[in-house]
Amino acid sequence: MTTKYNNVYIEDTYTICGNYENDGPLSKYFDKKYEKDLYFNEKSWEKAEAHLLKETNKNILNKNKLKDSDIDLLISGDLQNQIAASDYMARDFDIPFIGVFEACSTIGEGLIIGSTFVESKIAKKVIVSTSSHNMVAEKQFRNPTEYGTPKPKTSTFTATGAVSILLTNKKTKIKIESSTVGKVKDFGITDANHMGAVMAPAAGDVIYNHLKETKRNLDYYDLILTGDLGIYGKNILKDYMMTSYNIELKDNYNDCGTMLYDLDNQPVLAGGSGPVCSALVIFGYIYKEMLKGKLKKILIVPTGAIFSPTFTFQKESIPSIANAISLEVVE
Amino acid sequence: MTTKYNNVYIEDTYTICGNYENDGPLSKYFDKKYEKDLYFNEKSWEKAEAHLLKETNKNILNKNKLKDSDIDLLISGDLQNQIAASDYMARDFDIPFIGVFEACSTIGEGLIIGSTFVESKIAKKVIVSTSSHNMVAEKQFRNPTEYGTPKPKTSTFTATGAVSILLTNKKTKIKIESSTVGKVKDFGITDANHMGAVMAPAAGDVIYNHLKETKRNLDYYDLILTGDLGIYGKNILKDYMMTSYNIELKDNYNDCGTMLYDLDNQPVLAGGSGPVCSALVIFGYIYKEMLKGKLKKILIVPTGAIFSPTFTFQKESIPSIANAISLEVVE
Repeated sequence: MTTKYNNVYIEDTYTICGNYENDGPLSKYFDKKYEKDLYFNEKSWEKAEAHLLKETNKNILNKNKLKDSDIDLLISGDLQNQIAASDYMARDFDIPFIGVFEACSTIGEGLIIGSTFVESKIAKKVIVSTSSHNMVAEKQFRNPTEYGTPKPKTSTFTATGAVSILLTNKKTKIKIESSTVGKVKDFGITDANHMGAVMAPAAGDVIYNHLKETKRNLDYYDLILTGDLGIYGKNILKDYMMTSYNIELKDNYNDCGTMLYDLDNQPVLAGGSGPVCSALVIFGYIYKEMLKGKLKKILIVPTGAIFSPTFTFQKESIPSIANAISLEVVE
Repeated sequence: MTTKYNNVYIEDTYTICGNYENDGPLSKYFDKKYEKDLYFNEKSWEKAEAHLLKETNKNILNKNKLKDSDIDLLISGDLQNQIAASDYMARDFDIPFIGVFEACSTIGEGLIIGSTFVESKIAKKVIVSTSSHNMVAEKQFRNPTEYGTPKPKTSTFTATGAVSILLTNKKTKIKIESSTVGKVKDFGITDANHMGAVMAPAAGDVIYNHLKETKRNLDYYDLILTGDLGIYGKNILKDYMMTSYNIELKDNYNDCGTMLYDLDNQPVLAGGSGPVCSALVIFGYIYKEMLKGKLKKILIVPTGAIFSPTFTFQKESIPSIANAISLEVVE
């Protein structure tokens, strides 16, 4: 389902990263960086993640001299069971709340819901936020890190950080131009250490539907950015687009999972992942490049493996989803 | 945030229940009933829940002679970690998907998002669905049932079932008249066996805001129905409304958690809970009473305890949320 918006703009973004992301090539684009450890003065990793999410939302309000009552709606989601980081963040804000979950495509889903509220004039200002935390994800989805379990090179590394996006109905330099809501795809892959392969078909499907429904081709965009497919997933998507749709992804295509870290020198295997991975790359780095006018038309495609350890233990394959959102510099 | 809708109607609903709900007083209002066990021919409880959700959505399509391509958007959420029942349901539909989570208030959240898409003319037909499964919830949130852990009488019993609601922009007998999005509230309660107390302040807050923002009083409604506060939570809400807002909840107030089961003769302690509890009562029983003209103006207030076992083990209190939606018979 593709929608064109006439009335939805990005007023500001705020980005916070952890130490691994601070050591990566995009560090200078983030608003706040934690350099020491992954606790951020909290007593648990889960609370540390909720802390980041609260901090990014407090900071985007303060930076823009806004109070809770100036915001109509707060939309948030994260990887924790029961999206607990978002829930525990939201109790500290006096703002109507909508909780969402599509794994690492959560930021895409949140932006589409937020854009719908703004476009329909039901809301004037909406904050969309997401977070992830490397150790929370390792603990919840994988093996205890103390085991030192070796990982295959197709594994990705969950990014730590939190990102807020302030949507508004008043004209700014960057608009949400259109979006395509994704469908859940499952190509039968059961390997939880190869999420790039799990997610590539969902990304391919939504890119194809977006192009078809907007009657555009890839050249329309200065850049097409998938969420967090990583090195191998990126190539799988290229193959998939060619074999399924005869569409060639060229130099204006890249993947956020391959951009957040120095892949040659950081221990991130196939690249970054987690809801905040694409959010940091897009709303830290790319957003600022758009403000400078270096990029004008972008299609972002956050991708999510909707991985349930319970279903995977029960021999089920892993479904995935991706959403496509077009961002444009307002001329 | 309160919104009045001009353009959002309920075209149909479909309800499926399990054996405990079939033994309750509202059984005759449900479209399909499972009477034997809680597996529904699946090999695990988690798959059994996904099965129910898939079945209710297939059945509402078939009953209305609709194909996947006739539906613009499928919005779903449930209590499983990663809303896995909804994710594994959605992979079997070729419909753009939005995953939501607000625990037992998920159906309220889904209806508000769906109504926004329909009101804004972005979508014409939207399915909103939710489910819960007694044994999935026991396994995930509580103790293994084999332990036979005694429960306090303030505990509630997670309902088993699945419900679909088909929203449309074409006039039908029942409209979604308005809604108020709730805020996350936390009154410091840490007792996971007393969710009625956890959720009552969130219900009170959203009812108060709804009345204030619509300039209505309680008499406007034939019935005000909270989600699943149960016997004790219902009385706590009455006290809370009186002491906080000087508002007296009278005979036109009831709670779905006290209605789904025969509280004197079924082993459900303080009453029913789970996302499907209020969904079964409202979109099975109440919806059909509205179609008959016996009830005309209803305020539904699904309530959710956003309970994270991880945060509760870390000594945090339990936050909650509730949403208010006004349903009216079209004259």
